Amino acid sequence: MSTGITYPKGFKTSALNCGLKQSKLDLMIVTSDPPATPAGVFTKNVCCAAPVILSKNHINSEKIKAILVNSGNANAATGDEGYANAMKCVEELATRLNCIPTEILMSSTGIIGVPLQSDKIINSLDVLIKNLSENNDENAAQAILTTDTFAKKAVCEIELSGGKIKIGGIAKGSGMIMPDMATMLAFITTDVEIDKHILKVALKKAVDKSFNRITIDSDTSTNDSVIILANGASNVALTEDDKITFNEALESVCIDLAKMIVRDGEGATKFVAVIAEGCKTENDADKIARSIANSPLVKTALYGCNPNWGRVVAAAGKSGVSFDQNKLDVYFNGVLTVKNGLKANADPKILKKEFEKQGIEITVNINSGNSQATIWTCDLSHKYVDINVNYS
Amino acid sequence: MSTGITYPKGFKTSALNCGLKQSKLDLMIVTSDPPATPAGVFTKNVCCAAPVILSKNHINSEKIKAILVNSGNANAATGDEGYANAMKCVEELATRLNCIPTEILMSSTGIIGVPLQSDKIINSLDVLIKNLSENNDENAAQAILTTDTFAKKAVCEIELSGGKIKIGGIAKGSGMIMPDMATMLAFITTDVEIDKHILKVALKKAVDKSFNRITIDSDTSTNDSVIILANGASNVALTEDDKITFNEALESVCIDLAKMIVRDGEGATKFVAVIAEGCKTENDADKIARSIANSPLVKTALYGCNPNWGRVVAAAGKSGVSFDQNKLDVYFNGVLTVKNGLKANADPKILKKEFEKQGIEITVNINSGNSQATIWTCDLSHKYVDINVNYS
Repeated sequence: MSTGITYPKGFKTSALNCGLKQSKLDLMIVTSDPPATPAGVFTKNVCCAAPVILSKNHINSEKIKAILVNSGNANAATGDEGYANAMKCVEELATRLNCIPTEILMSSTGIIGVPLQSDKIINSLDVLIKNLSENNDENAAQAILTTDTFAKKAVCEIELSGGKIKIGGIAKGSGMIMPDMATMLAFITTDVEIDKHILKVALKKAVDKSFNRITIDSDTSTNDSVIILANGASNVALTEDDKITFNEALESVCIDLAKMIVRDGEGATKFVAVIAEGCKTENDADKIARSIANSPLVKTALYGCNPNWGRVVAAAGKSGVSFDQNKLDVYFNGVLTVKNGLKANADPKILKKEFEKQGIEITVNINSGNSQATIWTCDLSHKYVDINVNYS
Repeated sequence: MSTGITYPKGFKTSALNCGLKQSKLDLMIVTSDPPATPAGVFTKNVCCAAPVILSKNHINSEKIKAILVNSGNANAATGDEGYANAMKCVEELATRLNCIPTEILMSSTGIIGVPLQSDKIINSLDVLIKNLSENNDENAAQAILTTDTFAKKAVCEIELSGGKIKIGGIAKGSGMIMPDMATMLAFITTDVEIDKHILKVALKKAVDKSFNRITIDSDTSTNDSVIILANGASNVALTEDDKITFNEALESVCIDLAKMIVRDGEGATKFVAVIAEGCKTENDADKIARSIANSPLVKTALYGCNPNWGRVVAAAGKSGVSFDQNKLDVYFNGVLTVKNGLKANADPKILKKEFEKQGIEITVNINSGNSQATIWTCDLSHKYVDINVNYS
């Protein structure tokens, strides 16, 4: 029973080692029968990779037949040659799948600035296609990893007005050991029948509530991509009434995958949710939560199990949001630690105990509105420095 | 011979231990005779400290008689009581110096959220005043430190149309061991006779080119302040023709102090200048240089002596500035490493050697304009994590 990308009807996948990595799986394909309506969200980094440029174009196609993904090489900062290499792979795959190249998407993750050995990929396409199956889920999730420590999969089944539909997804986060890896990739499949524009809006919304709410180290990669394919194989068409149900289900799959990425963050020892409440706008709340989640001083304090509320106050204050510091409350795992901008009477022993837990919720309330936002992050550890210093 | 804050005529200083720290100097005063025209630039953190609120008000006075500075306690997140404590110190000092309280400025640095023991400060004022001298420069620079590893002083003498004038300054950066310290303070004195508005503009400009161009860990403190006092004791008045000369001299003193702060950054092993060139606007150049300087992935690579140009390219690309990645050039200490967005033929041995140096200049040119900006920073080391994890 599939628990990932082939959970919905009509999707098959296959993975192998094509030689970009020494022996681990490094090439994956997912196909859709019938061809699927696509939507995608891509990195805003202007130095984006060749496969990102290619997929941004091809995502405009009405239908997509397959996604080709390699790990071990990001095909970023590789110029025109990099684009030609990606296009060659896609053209060769299209010929074999009896479709046109614009019906194929491609993603890459791995080292930046090294030419992609496209011949290794092309030489593996026949075997890759031959092995396509509904039971290769785990291999597919493994093949897109760089040096993540575990495969990331999530599924969901919901009842719409026309019947049941399924959503499945896989993702990768920032890796370890190899220094150039900080790519976030996610591929989501669903067998619902859905209009392209509605799918695009739903994906954008879900990404804003999930992948765009996590931060490991504030560095945005050249290859970040989230792609969804909807093939209608369930024979259930999304109605106007189903929209909210579908959006919520898609959001929950995306949140599950996003949280797995944070848990597997480089050197992470803690999973941290930063919640900003009582803000005038959601944008303000996002800024405050993000400023706290990205603060190296807050992150090292979390690693040290150190209930250093002064750093949280200072990080909220530098967020660029204007608020009255005398109205600021801070809670750690629900324990009121700062009230009206001043130290509250929290029991230091209880606080210390909460900080030794693996999961920490930092709630900041500026008491000036009804909007809130959550950002998920991890701590900053010695191991983060180790991982990113070592160069092999 | 003074090499700091009493280098210009008419300034005296004195420092002692008042008991906020165990035995190190923790209280400093600098006085001006005649009283000086002031200007100041303060933290934009909305959770700013009580002495910052006080000094922001008092800086509007025509003349300032003295600045009182304590270390060991930031008097931040201390509410109305914190403000009352700061005001009590200032009032007691004003009585003793025969001036009004608004003619005194105050700065504090140290732990956040702990009530200031103002009685310790007040009980020390008589001795502090008695010991005022032109030869206490080094003590004054020491007393404002938290756990910086060295005192930071800079001076400059210039010839204006009316004669010679002097500028002197001291500063502190982010400390070590104690976890709440990330304050930047600088005090500058000059004996030029200058209009208050012109002084304010000159300070703003100089700070924008110096202290606002450094980043240790992207965390903005609750107490950051730069204050200048100009007392006219040289009997040389600044003329319209002198403006550029004076501005440049003030800028050079500020840059000297700012660079010392970076060299003494928490856990720093390298001094790094990031220069963004060929930009449409200075604002664009600033964004690109800052994005690279704040990237944990770039900073850990620098610590590891790792010429990882892919991270520099990715950090430039995520800056929010739109540019053509195929026009991007990157130099490390002048060695062309990326040309037109692609790996150039830099000798890996030469590159490795440059990265082992203590000073590294990263130059990024997007070849689309004539504006440039420089940001100074340091690397991200194991020691940074050590320093900020330990809580005593």
